[in-house]
Amino acid sequence: MTKLDKIVALCSRRGFVYQNSSIYGGMPAQYDYGPLGAELRKNIYDLWWKKMVTDREDIFGIDGRIILHPKVWEASGHIGGFAEALVEDKVTHKRYSGSKLAEEQLGLVLKDTDLEAVNKLIAEGKIKSPDNNELSLAKKFNLLVPVQLGSLEDSRKEAYLKGESCQNIYLNFKLVLESMHKNIPFGIAQVGRTFRNEITARQFLFRQREFDQMDVEYFCHPKDADKFYKEWKGFRWSWYEKDLGITKDKLRWYQHTDEERAFYARDAWDIQFNFDEMGWKEIEGLHDRSDYDLKQHSKFSGKDLSYTDPLTKEHYFPYVIESSSGWDRNFLVLLFDAYTEEKDRIVLKLKPVLAPYKVAVFPLVKNKEDLVNKAREVFDELKLKFSAAWDDRGNIGKRYYAQDEIGTPYCITIDYQTLEDATVTIRDRDTAKQERIKISEIEPLISKKIQL
Amino acid sequence: MTKLDKIVALCSRRGFVYQNSSIYGGMPAQYDYGPLGAELRKNIYDLWWKKMVTDREDIFGIDGRIILHPKVWEASGHIGGFAEALVEDKVTHKRYSGSKLAEEQLGLVLKDTDLEAVNKLIAEGKIKSPDNNELSLAKKFNLLVPVQLGSLEDSRKEAYLKGESCQNIYLNFKLVLESMHKNIPFGIAQVGRTFRNEITARQFLFRQREFDQMDVEYFCHPKDADKFYKEWKGFRWSWYEKDLGITKDKLRWYQHTDEERAFYARDAWDIQFNFDEMGWKEIEGLHDRSDYDLKQHSKFSGKDLSYTDPLTKEHYFPYVIESSSGWDRNFLVLLFDAYTEEKDRIVLKLKPVLAPYKVAVFPLVKNKEDLVNKAREVFDELKLKFSAAWDDRGNIGKRYYAQDEIGTPYCITIDYQTLEDATVTIRDRDTAKQERIKISEIEPLISKKIQL
Repeated sequence: MTKLDKIVALCSRRGFVYQNSSIYGGMPAQYDYGPLGAELRKNIYDLWWKKMVTDREDIFGIDGRIILHPKVWEASGHIGGFAEALVEDKVTHKRYSGSKLAEEQLGLVLKDTDLEAVNKLIAEGKIKSPDNNELSLAKKFNLLVPVQLGSLEDSRKEAYLKGESCQNIYLNFKLVLESMHKNIPFGIAQVGRTFRNEITARQFLFRQREFDQMDVEYFCHPKDADKFYKEWKGFRWSWYEKDLGITKDKLRWYQHTDEERAFYARDAWDIQFNFDEMGWKEIEGLHDRSDYDLKQHSKFSGKDLSYTDPLTKEHYFPYVIESSSGWDRNFLVLLFDAYTEEKDRIVLKLKPVLAPYKVAVFPLVKNKEDLVNKAREVFDELKLKFSAAWDDRGNIGKRYYAQDEIGTPYCITIDYQTLEDATVTIRDRDTAKQERIKISEIEPLISKKIQL
Repeated sequence: MTKLDKIVALCSRRGFVYQNSSIYGGMPAQYDYGPLGAELRKNIYDLWWKKMVTDREDIFGIDGRIILHPKVWEASGHIGGFAEALVEDKVTHKRYSGSKLAEEQLGLVLKDTDLEAVNKLIAEGKIKSPDNNELSLAKKFNLLVPVQLGSLEDSRKEAYLKGESCQNIYLNFKLVLESMHKNIPFGIAQVGRTFRNEITARQFLFRQREFDQMDVEYFCHPKDADKFYKEWKGFRWSWYEKDLGITKDKLRWYQHTDEERAFYARDAWDIQFNFDEMGWKEIEGLHDRSDYDLKQHSKFSGKDLSYTDPLTKEHYFPYVIESSSGWDRNFLVLLFDAYTEEKDRIVLKLKPVLAPYKVAVFPLVKNKEDLVNKAREVFDELKLKFSAAWDDRGNIGKRYYAQDEIGTPYCITIDYQTLEDATVTIRDRDTAKQERIKISEIEPLISKKIQL
């Protein structure tokens, strides 16, 4: 069993992630977050929002719609260039992305849209289908997902689901600037749903057709772009290492080659994570997008999105430093990094602030009314402060095992002594050590541990 | 100016809500939340999640995808019955919903799908287009939004965006039951994006083609359905009156007539809000959906979604009590209820826990370095605890005005006395009264006020 297989199994068994529409045989590469997954996911979101928006004076959050005016995708270049080289197995007629086959079979990194390079490899017999059959020549396949939004009052009928969530940020740039009375430099942050007609979506949450991007677009003077780019590399590394608590050795920087980099990008680095047998993979892209986006939208909309400095009166199109991270990938990275097999248990070593439940409460046995009542009392109070679990099934050892597996940092047991002196045992997930503390000490102790 | 007009203007001017894709002329009935709107919106979500999920032991949250297996919509009845009676102005060729025209022009409440009733009104000349022209006979128009999700490995290509967000809950019912080791009764909660091809989307955030539903589906034994229905009416009334703090007199219950109620619903009540000149309108639906959903999905999927009681071994399809509320409507209701015009100011009287900024910090004047430094120090510390605003523009009166309009409950001014005795003035939004308190008292005071 690969580590990914183990994580998929844990996710399904313990209510983190389910196959979407599973009773109907499942939608390929679509996943729903179950109860514990929804909690972990929300905790990632809340932490990101705090670090990127609330704590900062120079970044505003927005929350925009998925369906935008169709012209947005002409301006952004997605209608022309957001495509993959689609190849077909000549025997099975299954379809694949040519560049992904080249990467898997030859370790070659090609631009997704480079039909010529893919066709050369096919002609030379260097890539085949995964079933080892010959491939058809590549065709350009656009990844935007079309939608019929029946805005029937007018003629506009075909639109697209967002192929890149950040576009609302450029569209609203001037509105934010004006309504918030802000000057350059400043940033706009958004978490939004993105849809892509990936030819081969796969690897669980890693590559899906429907997923969420967490973006910050930081607008600055062109001469400051290098300085802010460097600063943002620091912020975003710290997000993974410090805020999410990912093991440092499993993170690295990767700079895009000229081949890989989008034509408008001045510089592009990815943060990669070591997904064990899946290898190093991108979890975040940091891009210096230059003034491409604002200029393109100015051109296509006819609205001037340039900026005039209120002091110097200098007039320019701001440059954009972009941090683009996958909410689902952050989730998957956390599981990969936290998943730990020890001699007699599986432990999800999540930072307490991220754990789905902060605490679990157990009555020592379930058939002693006074123990259960006391445990209920403790539980009912903690539950209003923290996400908390109740468990009275099986023996205490099994309950610890069950909580370790989902990452609950603390387990509280109410036993006979509790009835006498109002103390409980509190057990630490990582050390598996127990201490005896007063009931009144539980809440401050946990509050302290989940502080950011 | 109607109250709605005033609210739309405030939303745009102060960064709560912008027209989506406005630089391209706007997408009709699509709105993006700006910086302050995104904060208010997140605060509503967090409070709902706390009250409906975290605080409760019997409800689990999930977070499912927007695109489901297309068969879901056959089973749910949406492909057959989720439609409106589309009528066309014979002169302008503009299209309208027949039942909505009947409601607006005659105060008649018809089923959206009742073509016959609409055609009778047209034939009798009782309804006309808004331009006073004759109408064509009604055609059935399905509200599901089709999407081409190119799952190219298989033949399944046409899918739909969710026309009702709650469907993931039924699809995952058994998975949640099993992975969470839960017994009936229990509930599943979800906030999710919904898309509807409304013929006439209008009234700002009230009726959009893309919006979010906040749902709880509570699964219970059929014999307990009446009891839980009553209980849920209590929970949900309390959400509006107590948790959101909406004025009681502006809320009322409305029971669906036999005409209005969905054919599978045993009972259906709406909570309505008095939107001034827009009238009383639905902001939440509470439905006893019987065992319709689980039975339909069992039938269409071939998977048995019935339940066996672990103690009595009784075997049955649970009934579902549904609370379905609009996230965007909650937002709009809050603005309508909080918006207050006083003699010399506009105040958004939001509950402090919901306000976009909890506090604003001002240096008395902006050109005294020591004042500004001290104010910065206070601001920088508060900002790590609460969403906080900084303002040093204009005079203090103007700054109060600006914060009142966006609902900031407290304003802190750092003045010359602060430099001497470490006290500040704190001004209360609602009373406009100022007090002098120590810097060290600010955080505990605000923390207390925003407690739930």
